[in-house]
Amino acid sequence: MNSNNPLAPEIEASDWLNTDRPLSLAGLRGRVVVLHAFQMLCPGCVSHGLPQARRIREVFSEEDVAVIGLHTVFEHHDVMGADALRVFVHEYRIGFPVGIDKAAGNGGIPLTMQNYALRGTPSLLLIDRRGHLRLNHFGRIDDLQMGALIGQWVNDSADSTSASTFTADDVAPGRCSVERNS
Amino acid sequence: MNSNNPLAPEIEASDWLNTDRPLSLAGLRGRVVVLHAFQMLCPGCVSHGLPQARRIREVFSEEDVAVIGLHTVFEHHDVMGADALRVFVHEYRIGFPVGIDKAAGNGGIPLTMQNYALRGTPSLLLIDRRGHLRLNHFGRIDDLQMGALIGQWVNDSADSTSASTFTADDVAPGRCSVERNS
Amino acid sequence: MNSNNPLAPEIEASDWLNTDRPLSLAGLRGRVVVLHAFQMLCPGCVSHGLPQARRIREVFSEEDVAVIGLHTVFEHHDVMGADALRVFVHEYRIGFPVGIDKAAGNGGIPLTMQNYALRGTPSLLLIDRRGHLRLNHFGRIDDLQMGALIGQWVNDSADSTSASTFTADDVAPGRCSVERNS
Amino acid sequence: MNSNNPLAPEIEASDWLNTDRPLSLAGLRGRVVVLHAFQMLCPGCVSHGLPQARRIREVFSEEDVAVIGLHTVFEHHDVMGADALRVFVHEYRIGFPVGIDKAAGNGGIPLTMQNYALRGTPSLLLIDRRGHLRLNHFGRIDDLQMGALIGQWVNDSADSTSASTFTADDVAPGRCSVERNS
Repeated sequence: MNSNNPLAPEIEASDWLNTDRPLSLAGLRGRVVVLHAFQMLCPGCVSHGLPQARRIREVFSEEDVAVIGLHTVFEHHDVMGADALRVFVHEYRIGFPVGIDKAAGNGGIPLTMQNYALRGTPSLLLIDRRGHLRLNHFGRIDDLQMGALIGQWVNDSADSTSASTFTADDVAPGRCSVERNS
Repeated sequence: MNSNNPLAPEIEASDWLNTDRPLSLAGLRGRVVVLHAFQMLCPGCVSHGLPQARRIREVFSEEDVAVIGLHTVFEHHDVMGADALRVFVHEYRIGFPVGIDKAAGNGGIPLTMQNYALRGTPSLLLIDRRGHLRLNHFGRIDDLQMGALIGQWVNDSADSTSASTFTADDVAPGRCSVERNS
Repeated sequence: MNSNNPLAPEIEASDWLNTDRPLSLAGLRGRVVVLHAFQMLCPGCVSHGLPQARRIREVFSEEDVAVIGLHTVFEHHDVMGADALRVFVHEYRIGFPVGIDKAAGNGGIPLTMQNYALRGTPSLLLIDRRGHLRLNHFGRIDDLQMGALIGQWVNDSADSTSASTFTADDVAPGRCSVERNS
Repeated sequence: MNSNNPLAPEIEASDWLNTDRPLSLAGLRGRVVVLHAFQMLCPGCVSHGLPQARRIREVFSEEDVAVIGLHTVFEHHDVMGADALRVFVHEYRIGFPVGIDKAAGNGGIPLTMQNYALRGTPSLLLIDRRGHLRLNHFGRIDDLQMGALIGQWVNDSADSTSASTFTADDVAPGRCSVERNS
C-alpha cells in the first residue's frame, strides 16, 4: 500500500491525564494510533465520539492499537480548563490517555488542532503503524465503517495477530440453537 | 497471510430470491463474501443479524464485498417454507440475494448448514477473496468488530480501493465547528 | 370524565394462545385494556409494537391493566395462519394472551379489525375500566406518550393503587450519589 | 385522591437561566411541575435525565406541565459554576428554565437539595397541581413509567385537556397499511 503520505504531525500537549509520562506518535510507532479530538462540553463528543473511542479500546488489543484522547479547546476556554477536564475524565470513567492540546498564544485554536487543520470536534485522526496519517475526519462515523477503517491498518502488517485473537459474544439473546432440538 | 485454510464448502440452495440466477462461491471469487445464515422466525436474526447484514451492504462496495442471506431452516419447517420466506423478504425490504438452504432428506439440518457445521442462527460466515473460510460465528458480533473482520479481508489485496472510497456522515448532530466562532 | 363514548366492540376471535379460556372485553370490565393489533410478519409490529406491549405488561399491574394481542391478518393469509403464529409466539417469548381475529368469509379484513375500522398494523386500542374505547391509533406511539395515555385511564378510578405501588430502577448507571462524598 | 401530603418545599435558586424572571412553585400552582435535579458533569444526567426532561417538555403541553431543571451542585463546585453551566445549557440546547440551587454556607449540599433530602443526581421531583410532592426519585425511570406517573397527575383535574390534545407519529416506519392492498 501507498506510504508516500507525510508523517503525521506530532502531538503538542501541555499536560497528560491517565498516563505516567507524555506520549508521542514517535514513541507509538509500530502501532495504529486512534487519536480522538474532543471538547468536554461538546454534545457530539460526549454522546458519540467518546463512547466509540471506549469501544475501540475494548475491541482492539493494546499491542495493535493505541487509543488517545486529545482535548482541543477552541471555545469557552474559561470553563474547559485542566481542572474541569480532570473532573470530566473521572466522572465519565475514561480510562485511556488524554492529552491537553497546547494553547496558542492568542487564545484561539490550540497547536495540534492547527497542525492537523481540524474543523471542529469530534474529529478522528487515524495514523498507521509507520506514522502516516490515514484519516482526518470531522463528525460522526458509524461503528461498522470505523471498524473497517481501523481493521484495514491493523492488518497492514506481516505480523498481525488480530485475526487469531478474535472473540465475540457467545451468549447472544434471541439466537436459535440446534442443540435444543436434539 | 496464511492461505492454507481449505476452500469454503459451496452453497447448496434449492432456490434463490432477489437474484436472476443461482449464486455460487466459485462465481464470487475475487470478492469477500459475507454469508448470513438466518431463519425468518429467529428473533436474534430479525432484530440483529439481518439489520447488520443490511448495514454491511451499505458500507462496503459491491465490488469488494458480496452480502448473501442463507435461509437455513432446521426447525418448524412447515411455517418457514419458500412462500413464507418470500413474504418475509418483501415485508422486511431485504434487497440482497437470499438462498434457500437445500433440505436434507430426513427433514433435519439442511445441507449447507451441515457442511459448515453451523450451531444455529444467526451465524456469520466470512469467506476471503480466494474462497477460504475465515470466520464461522454463531450469535451476535458488534458492528465495530464486524467492520474490523470484514475490513481485514477486503484490504488483503494489492488492488484494494476501499480506503479511497471512504465517505462518512458530514452533517453529524451535536458536533462543534470552528467556523461558527470565526 | 366523559363517558358518553359507546362501548368498545367485543373481540371476535377464532382461537386464543397463552390463555386457558377465551377472553372478552365484558369479562375484563374494571380493568384498562390495552389491545395490540399486529401481524407476525409486519416489521413495525415486531420491532416496535410487540416489545412495547411487553414493556406495558411489565410496568403496569395485572389488576389495573390487561394487555392482549390480537392477530389481525389482512394480507398473506397463507403464511400467517394459526400454526405459524404459534411458532412466532413461542420463539418471541410472548407471554400475554393473543387472540386470532376471526376471518371474514371473503378472505379480506377479519371481523374485529372491521368493527374497529383499523387502518393497518400495528394498531393500539385503549379501552377504559368501563369498557369505552378511548384511543384507536395506527402506527407508532413513543413510550412517554403511551405511559401518559394508559396512566390517565388507570387512575380514572377512586380505588387506584398504582401510585403507591411504584417501583423504579435503584441501581441506575452513571448517577452521582451524595454518599460517596460523605 | 389523597391531598394530605405537605406542600413541596419552595425552590431556592441563586440564579435562573432560560427565563426572564425567577420561578417559584407557588407561581406554578395549577400545573404539574417536573423538577429535574442534575449536575452538568454527571454522566447519568447527560445521557438519560436531561434528554428525558426534553422529551417530557415535547409530549406534554405547557399549560398542563412545567418542566424545570435544577442545578444542584454538591461536588466539584469549582468547575460547575454559573459560567460553566451557561455554556453547558447553550451547547446542549436546553430550552426549559434552569435554576441554580442556592449554595450552603459551608460549600456542601445546596439548600433546595437539602430541603428535599435528595440522595444525588439525577433526581426527579414530581409536584401536583396543588403543590404537593408526589414523587422524589433518585436515578433512572423508564419512559413508559415516567409517562404514567406524570399522566396520572396531569389528569387529576376536572378541566384536563390532555386527552384531547393527543397527537402521535402518523408516518411510522415499518407499519403495514390496509390501503396498499386495495
